[in-house]
Amino acid sequence: MVSVDAWLERQVRCSRGLVQEFAAARSAEYFTAPDTELLGEITKNFVGRGKYLRSTLGYLGWLCGQPESAAAVSATASLELLHAFALIQDDVMDDSVSRRGTASVHEQLATWARTTGKVEHPAKFGESAAVLLADLFLVWSERMLRECGLPDEALQRAWPIFDLLRNELAVGQFSDLLNENPLTAELDAVLDVARRKSGNYSVRRPLELGASLAGCTPDVMAALQHYGSAIGEAFQLRDDLLGVFGDPATTGKPLGDDLRQHKASTIIVAARTLADEAQVQQMRVLAKTQPASSYDEQVWIADWQDLISSCGAIGWAEDRIDALVGEARTAVDSIAELPREVLLRVADQCTRRQR
Amino acid sequence: MVSVDAWLERQVRCSRGLVQEFAAARSAEYFTAPDTELLGEITKNFVGRGKYLRSTLGYLGWLCGQPESAAAVSATASLELLHAFALIQDDVMDDSVSRRGTASVHEQLATWARTTGKVEHPAKFGESAAVLLADLFLVWSERMLRECGLPDEALQRAWPIFDLLRNELAVGQFSDLLNENPLTAELDAVLDVARRKSGNYSVRRPLELGASLAGCTPDVMAALQHYGSAIGEAFQLRDDLLGVFGDPATTGKPLGDDLRQHKASTIIVAARTLADEAQVQQMRVLAKTQPASSYDEQVWIADWQDLISSCGAIGWAEDRIDALVGEARTAVDSIAELPREVLLRVADQCTRRQR
Repeated sequence: MVSVDAWLERQVRCSRGLVQEFAAARSAEYFTAPDTELLGEITKNFVGRGKYLRSTLGYLGWLCGQPESAAAVSATASLELLHAFALIQDDVMDDSVSRRGTASVHEQLATWARTTGKVEHPAKFGESAAVLLADLFLVWSERMLRECGLPDEALQRAWPIFDLLRNELAVGQFSDLLNENPLTAELDAVLDVARRKSGNYSVRRPLELGASLAGCTPDVMAALQHYGSAIGEAFQLRDDLLGVFGDPATTGKPLGDDLRQHKASTIIVAARTLADEAQVQQMRVLAKTQPASSYDEQVWIADWQDLISSCGAIGWAEDRIDALVGEARTAVDSIAELPREVLLRVADQCTRRQR
Repeated sequence: MVSVDAWLERQVRCSRGLVQEFAAARSAEYFTAPDTELLGEITKNFVGRGKYLRSTLGYLGWLCGQPESAAAVSATASLELLHAFALIQDDVMDDSVSRRGTASVHEQLATWARTTGKVEHPAKFGESAAVLLADLFLVWSERMLRECGLPDEALQRAWPIFDLLRNELAVGQFSDLLNENPLTAELDAVLDVARRKSGNYSVRRPLELGASLAGCTPDVMAALQHYGSAIGEAFQLRDDLLGVFGDPATTGKPLGDDLRQHKASTIIVAARTLADEAQVQQMRVLAKTQPASSYDEQVWIADWQDLISSCGAIGWAEDRIDALVGEARTAVDSIAELPREVLLRVADQCTRRQR
């Protein structure tokens, strides 16, 4: 086989190419009314970026039961359109101003409205139009899977997973809106949500989708589920670390979003659990502080970072990530060489990543 | 055959029953996390109401090529979940406070958040949670169609229409956000949008969906398309009349929403087109007025109503509706008795309705 890196690079390039092609065809088909060319531009830019993690995992699930197949690459690439839907609507709900290293979609649309003077309330327009574009991606994702070219019996096996994945995604986001207070949340409960929500969505369900398309045996399915749960949780731990300590230049997201949104993320709740009395008191003070300027906010974020780090939460998270990656490695021991070697690399990539 | 009214009554009852059953099963399947029972409650109330017009038209399309079938009722009932998705998100985008005679979904969710004190920003939460619930309805709609029980070749014929319908819906709503100024919009352009957007979505595409599931002949398809375009436009004209003159007690929507939103609806643009110079001047003054109290707003709405009526726009709209209904009656002349008689009744119902 080619090197793992070369294989991964080719896989991401193929998936991205298929999504771009599909999205361009849909844009040409539906974006014909005045001003909708704007939606086509945004679509093109959005699907051209991203890590293409979920489609890669989906295809690796497929390879656990079947040989390489262009139709299966297309089927699992549909997960990237679903992910685009999720990111665009999440950014509206979280008021996030940037994504994938550029302005978030609702910000781009609001800026267009401001520049052209075509609507009365540009910010509201940006949010509504972004929700609609995301709706289209949700519909396109299902169409891309349906039209992938795999036989009907393969699709029939996959629809229950695809349904579950889409429902868990929306219900998980609803639970996120009811975000608990990070100063009172229980660490076990937060870790459980991380496993069920993000872990399932980002790692386990994509693997299951590909494996169900391929008709994998129950043994293989169980191994992938075990790997998926462990790496899914580790992925979320890394995400939460980046949410506090990540460099905006590499994450493409603003610094300290999780802190600003008072999010009960694993790293923040772990810090509070590890903290001594004085440190908990400092957290209470910081949580109540409303930075008055952007300079004050930088200081406020740095204070949070120091505090979380001095509680030992970084070490706790890194140890836990290491243990989970080890568990995942063992789980895929008996899987065929090609998917296994790549799964091990992906496990490292998505738990050691800087973005 | 039974009387048209009895048939219609049974059809709506059956469709509603199937949607309620499907939605209850999905709620039990997915609404298991804390506080999601709220989503189940809202779902149950929302799908229990509504006119079930689109599912009825879809099923009539089916009857133009095939005998009665429970699977086809289920397939076309899926349009009601799609419609629920559209209404809930539209209400968020238009800031509409009521729907189907009760608070709109985002208002219900915001009220819950305010009452329980579970979130920091109840209004924002209401909007986000409503968008997510609508997303679920969009996904459920496709699943209900996919699982209706009709043979695969019927579904394969229908997917292109279902795709088109969903895409036109989102793109049409995007164009609505870029709503033109009612004092400068061209009547022909506004009528064209009414035909393409609402006409297609509410009447023509549902008919085509059912007819494609049934494998109708090109002749029957063309007759339904002709009927659908005419009744679709007439439906929108009635909707726009109700948007200005409708009684909130029967429409279930607040009075004067279209006026408040400066919407370039057909009736408002027709009034401006028919108006003399003095009347146009009065419109300009009214359009610039910001009512200071709810009493002032009632007076402002009444002034608009008097002005639109005195321009002769009501007579213009009623004449046009009559002509379109006549055209639609002729179009379905050669169609089998059972669907034809009901189509004629539905044509009257959806163009003479008070809600």
